[in-house]
Amino acid sequence: MPRTRSALPATGPVRLGPDSRAALRPAAVGIDTGFWQARRASNAHVSIPQGPALLEAAGNLHNLRLAAGTAAGEFQGAYPFVDTDVYKWLEAAAWQLAQAPDGDQAPDGDQAPGGDLAPDADLAAEVGRIVALVAGAQQPDGYLNTWFQLVKGGERYKDLRWGHELYCAGHLIQAAVAHHRATGSGELLDVARKFADHVDSVFGPPGSGKPIDGIDGHPEVETALIELYRETGESRYLDLAAYFVDRYGHGLLGGEAYCQDRVPLREATNVEGHAVRQLYLLAAAADLATETGDAELRTAAERLWHAMTTTKTHLTGGLGAHHEEEDFGDPYELPNERAYCETCAAIASIQWSWRMALLTGEARYSDLIERTLFNGFLAGVSLDGERWLYVNPLQVRDGHTDPGGDQSARRTRWFRCACCPPNVMRLLASLEHYLASSDDNGLQIHQYVSGRYASDLAVIRSETDYPWQGTIALTVEETPAEPWTLSLRVPQWCREFRVRCGQETYEGPVVDGWLRLERTWSPGDQVVLELSLEPRLTAADPRVDAVRGCVAIERGPLVYCLEGVDHPGGGLDDIVVDTTRPLAVKHRPDLLGGVTTVVAAGSRRHLPEAGWWPYAPVDESPDSPQQDGEPVELTAVPYYAWANREDGSMRVWLPTS
Amino acid sequence: MPRTRSALPATGPVRLGPDSRAALRPAAVGIDTGFWQARRASNAHVSIPQGPALLEAAGNLHNLRLAAGTAAGEFQGAYPFVDTDVYKWLEAAAWQLAQAPDGDQAPDGDQAPGGDLAPDADLAAEVGRIVALVAGAQQPDGYLNTWFQLVKGGERYKDLRWGHELYCAGHLIQAAVAHHRATGSGELLDVARKFADHVDSVFGPPGSGKPIDGIDGHPEVETALIELYRETGESRYLDLAAYFVDRYGHGLLGGEAYCQDRVPLREATNVEGHAVRQLYLLAAAADLATETGDAELRTAAERLWHAMTTTKTHLTGGLGAHHEEEDFGDPYELPNERAYCETCAAIASIQWSWRMALLTGEARYSDLIERTLFNGFLAGVSLDGERWLYVNPLQVRDGHTDPGGDQSARRTRWFRCACCPPNVMRLLASLEHYLASSDDNGLQIHQYVSGRYASDLAVIRSETDYPWQGTIALTVEETPAEPWTLSLRVPQWCREFRVRCGQETYEGPVVDGWLRLERTWSPGDQVVLELSLEPRLTAADPRVDAVRGCVAIERGPLVYCLEGVDHPGGGLDDIVVDTTRPLAVKHRPDLLGGVTTVVAAGSRRHLPEAGWWPYAPVDESPDSPQQDGEPVELTAVPYYAWANREDGSMRVWLPTS
Repeated sequence: MPRTRSALPATGPVRLGPDSRAALRPAAVGIDTGFWQARRASNAHVSIPQGPALLEAAGNLHNLRLAAGTAAGEFQGAYPFVDTDVYKWLEAAAWQLAQAPDGDQAPDGDQAPGGDLAPDADLAAEVGRIVALVAGAQQPDGYLNTWFQLVKGGERYKDLRWGHELYCAGHLIQAAVAHHRATGSGELLDVARKFADHVDSVFGPPGSGKPIDGIDGHPEVETALIELYRETGESRYLDLAAYFVDRYGHGLLGGEAYCQDRVPLREATNVEGHAVRQLYLLAAAADLATETGDAELRTAAERLWHAMTTTKTHLTGGLGAHHEEEDFGDPYELPNERAYCETCAAIASIQWSWRMALLTGEARYSDLIERTLFNGFLAGVSLDGERWLYVNPLQVRDGHTDPGGDQSARRTRWFRCACCPPNVMRLLASLEHYLASSDDNGLQIHQYVSGRYASDLAVIRSETDYPWQGTIALTVEETPAEPWTLSLRVPQWCREFRVRCGQETYEGPVVDGWLRLERTWSPGDQVVLELSLEPRLTAADPRVDAVRGCVAIERGPLVYCLEGVDHPGGGLDDIVVDTTRPLAVKHRPDLLGGVTTVVAAGSRRHLPEAGWWPYAPVDESPDSPQQDGEPVELTAVPYYAWANREDGSMRVWLPTS
Repeated sequence: MPRTRSALPATGPVRLGPDSRAALRPAAVGIDTGFWQARRASNAHVSIPQGPALLEAAGNLHNLRLAAGTAAGEFQGAYPFVDTDVYKWLEAAAWQLAQAPDGDQAPDGDQAPGGDLAPDADLAAEVGRIVALVAGAQQPDGYLNTWFQLVKGGERYKDLRWGHELYCAGHLIQAAVAHHRATGSGELLDVARKFADHVDSVFGPPGSGKPIDGIDGHPEVETALIELYRETGESRYLDLAAYFVDRYGHGLLGGEAYCQDRVPLREATNVEGHAVRQLYLLAAAADLATETGDAELRTAAERLWHAMTTTKTHLTGGLGAHHEEEDFGDPYELPNERAYCETCAAIASIQWSWRMALLTGEARYSDLIERTLFNGFLAGVSLDGERWLYVNPLQVRDGHTDPGGDQSARRTRWFRCACCPPNVMRLLASLEHYLASSDDNGLQIHQYVSGRYASDLAVIRSETDYPWQGTIALTVEETPAEPWTLSLRVPQWCREFRVRCGQETYEGPVVDGWLRLERTWSPGDQVVLELSLEPRLTAADPRVDAVRGCVAIERGPLVYCLEGVDHPGGGLDDIVVDTTRPLAVKHRPDLLGGVTTVVAAGSRRHLPEAGWWPYAPVDESPDSPQQDGEPVELTAVPYYAWANREDGSMRVWLPTS
């Protein structure tokens, strides 16, 4: 028996305000089987439930108790923003609580084989317990930051560049909004409003009578304040966010690109500085343009998205080229082994792009979201949901010496700077809100999953084994009698597709990424989209020096990689792929939770006898004339699944000669 | 009138001890004209004289006065090792004082056109003044570190990982040895011995009765102690150095590669961690093997030198692949725009390689020294001697956003961490001691300069315009009657050469880099070495992913680069070099102080109309099929001279298609 619209989760991030100028409204999706259901089940039943114990072990909860005066001891943790680990976990847990099936609409007979997404039984109690800890730590005037309360008493807002106080406020607010949307409880929202009102009483432009004209070194409070405005209707929060966004780039923090303080967004020509900071700020700019109609800010956000995607994005959707300062690099500076591609940056990119998709209605934003979700983001969490990557390189060399620590290329149980794990949790727990939208003309499907897409207009059932198979079978379950348009995103990577709609077949037109089917629909109508998943070899713009003479293997939305463990001898740096031979596809249900592998022909090059100097005149070069190598079958696995077996080498980009 | 042997500088670093097992003994060279004379004149008359004012402005001298109690105020500087800026300057100034001509052997009529290298008149007084400041700051028990004395009172030797106390002691000792060798004064040597004796009373192995079994996070004191042993004959210093070297790699500092604490040198298979730390430690290992005959340590040093040179050295001789932690990367991880190649690492590499050259007698160590001197080292100082590079990248991209600060790709007047400038000064001021050697069979010329090579056996006059011209004309000035061997290093890069010796011509054999001419020599005998300086295109081992499909232009020992300023439009990232067309050579006395440029044929590729995604299937790739570009003449300048004009792009490695 199909669920009804009302049974679908209706609460998620980005609830548009009453005056929103967005082209599209978010629509909810119930994911009940398939690829993302499995990943979300691991999030629901492993990652999120393990959170409180990890936060306890790391001292985050202890700090809250210390600040509340209910425990004794020392502040624990290395950073002034450790409270945000708690807030992000609370946000994730709140979105997870929103997955609770209504009592009268419990999962039915066609229950997903991958397990239910309903939250674990004791999650609500855990959330309540931790919300109470947060509330208890708040100071009477609304301020809340355990580092400053416990370690830097009396130094509030003295070190805006590094203090992260507003950054922490932002994550608290986002957790509170989620908690309110998911549970209806105002307990955490009251804490957040009190802090937001405090911030609003302290920060403001010159002449406002507020004591500080300033911004936080790490943007984040801005999107949070806009969400708080959306949740409460209080326009002061929107105004405060607008003020903050426009004060970046004017040297208030010393003028560093790192802190987004070198140039105002409205004048910037490319993304720069600390990637997550840049992306959170841009998400806020998109939100502001959405809620206020600020055309200049919208233009800036569109310009910067285009510049970033064209010149500073790794094939995986990963962002950030430098370990030093967690920075974007220069245009086309996209290293492999030193790709930073912080998991949090992938999440921030998805959050920004989704806001741009809603604002503009353009499909390319969801193209980047898809690529990021399946690759640069998903690699951040292990298949079992218990281990994490903070950085997501595109290569691990033969003979790699791992430095350990947060920036390790080996999965880690928890980090000293544990920003990424609860960030992954909150995105996975609210993923269904990034997949579809509606407007007055109909429903737009941005991402393909198995489940139900529901707008205020219609409900569509989707069945697919995507991304392993390219067939997406859609069935209209609820529809008005009047004609409306079902819009299907044809992914940017897709070179061949077909849509069958009853007896008719379409191959286009695809306009700006959308295939639009306008008609009078009836319940039971079927639309079958078939995306060709022929594996492909991909090359980069010639300015991407790091991958000159290389190709990557892709299939559908998935970027593939080689891992040493799949190749006898383990070494990968002597491998050459033969681009003249066809790629083969092999589904391996046994491997890495079930993946489709791509098999390519290649060889191991005969490396020259090593002298002591690795450079030589071209005519004596060991690389020319090309020597035949030893043939070797190359087995590529999806990038998201790498580093789930034994440690070893990995490569996304493969030399062709 | 030729100078006599006694007029040549006889004091420099690395004076072998009485029990030395070195194959070769250092021989002094008097450089009086030519390439290095000009660079050294700038060092003598600009860089070194400007040092005291810069050290005063940065607060280093102020700190010494504070510690002496002769001034009031706050400690200045950001690091616990700021004293070493003073010590390194003192060492440089001392080597410079050693250039003073004896009164009765003043420069004669054939005076170098580039100016005398004799120190400025007031240098001795400046040295005396600053030596007194250092002596005044020393504590009664010999300890000396202004940071700990002024800021961390009472925390001596509590933070060996980061405190740099022994590192500072090391540079003090090296300055004192230089001061003693150059001036005969014991004033600074007394200070250094007192500190060394204090260190020796504190540090020692378990069971030694010394309070601390420990090492410094930054190796440096080890080579210094060995030099102190050489200067004083006190074997306790040698023993202490040996103890320190062998305690690295055992986890005393937490086991990080960064601090050389992950694996003992004797077991290590490749260089790793912080490049300068690794290289200073290896210089000490070479010194120990030289002075003690420790065969295992010698083997380890040889193994690590080979591994480093083969897998972790940039074309320029630059070392260090990571900005983060100033680290070596993995094997063949040799990025261009993010090459770290700290100037200090180039200096440390030269110091280590010279010790290896003396120890083993093998020419390859001097091959690497030559490459590093002319490229990765010399780029660290501007042509005018006033501005510096801390990092030495091999590429600056079009559209580069410079972060400023110490790691800027723009030359800087002085650094917050000012380790490199006085390090450059001390190497240039003592350069003549890294160029030649002698043994019982004769004289070995490692590097070719204009001047006089003098061993205890013979004196050879050399005239050359190297590296612009390949002809080196050698004239025997003093010689014993008995036959001996003149050994000439035929550089590793050299593919064609000829030696004329009177009426005879030789083209070999070259055995392990040495061409050996054994005969009975007479004063006036001439040897003319002609090294072919045909410019060449160089490719890298195929495992150096960063330069796949690229070549570099080299000529003689010089690596070349393109600078945007020489190419209309300024952009370099769309340039392709045509490897089928000949390279032309053009000497430009007007340019960059007089350089030979290499002109190559190339084109600017027609870049594809940018979509929003820079990756595409190979068969649709903008890079294939190759489109013809706009022809452009490429003007390459020596890498050492880059960044001496307006800011802009730069590339060493050039795509070939």
